[in-house]
Amino acid sequence: MFPRYAMSALVAVAALTACQQAETAEQTHARMRMESDSARVAIDARGKAFAEATNAGNADAVAALYTDDAVLMPPDMPAVTGRDNIRATFAAMMGQMPGMKIAFEVQDVMANGPLAVERGAWIITVPTPDGGSSEMRGKYLVAWHRIDGEWMMARDIWNNDAPLPAM
Amino acid sequence: MFPRYAMSALVAVAALTACQQAETAEQTHARMRMESDSARVAIDARGKAFAEATNAGNADAVAALYTDDAVLMPPDMPAVTGRDNIRATFAAMMGQMPGMKIAFEVQDVMANGPLAVERGAWIITVPTPDGGSSEMRGKYLVAWHRIDGEWMMARDIWNNDAPLPAM
Repeated sequence: MFPRYAMSALVAVAALTACQQAETAEQTHARMRMESDSARVAIDARGKAFAEATNAGNADAVAALYTDDAVLMPPDMPAVTGRDNIRATFAAMMGQMPGMKIAFEVQDVMANGPLAVERGAWIITVPTPDGGSSEMRGKYLVAWHRIDGEWMMARDIWNNDAPLPAM
Repeated sequence: MFPRYAMSALVAVAALTACQQAETAEQTHARMRMESDSARVAIDARGKAFAEATNAGNADAVAALYTDDAVLMPPDMPAVTGRDNIRATFAAMMGQMPGMKIAFEVQDVMANGPLAVERGAWIITVPTPDGGSSEMRGKYLVAWHRIDGEWMMARDIWNNDAPLPAM
């Protein structure tokens, strides 16, 4: 009879072998779909916090959503590196567009562990002197890092869906 | 005496428990640094292939670098979805800027398994009627997917570092 301890040893080896094998591509995709759904919920909440902070003119709260060494990549100006410079950039933008409101629509999120990519659309509404408002629309891509359980923006780039009217 | 088969069973349980434990954050970061370095080499080569194809006016070869369902997010126009539409968009851009040359500089790559994010800078040089050339510079963010061992662009957004001169 095959000794029982040998059988148990075989089970242990089989367990370790299964462990050391990488996920199949199918398993990876299934896991990433689940992680992406979960990240999307958190990222959607972060976007709402961003919009609220911007609409309240609170550049500190906006900057707090970025990693220490994040890179902000706004259109028609050079990239801005680091949370302190990002705070100053948002403060300047808010100063240039008093009364601006921003809203985001998350379009898709792809996550794998602590790295996620979000694609979305933005709308900025700015009051005009005649009491109406002008609207700009565009799109964005954000690379998110999950640090100590919190999703933070590490790279943030956007552009417009149409050329801006001449000033 | 503790029976040997029970000991082996304990080993098996211990092996499976170790297996089911996630990587520590430190292990994840170390692995991601290695994967990012490796992805950067492949992505750098893809960027050179992109530049060569663009400089040769070959929109087919440019489109082949994107996933089937990629989203291209150019400045001042709406997003473009799918490889066929991306091919048409690049063909139109090349038609608008005859003799254009493009070059890329990869600035950083963050990868985790089959997902990577690349940040970089681009320079486009266009010949002018006086025999000189005009230069535009900007930045980009690309989400890459590794599919069947090949890195493909899934999301591609860019903008300019300065406003374009009025036409």
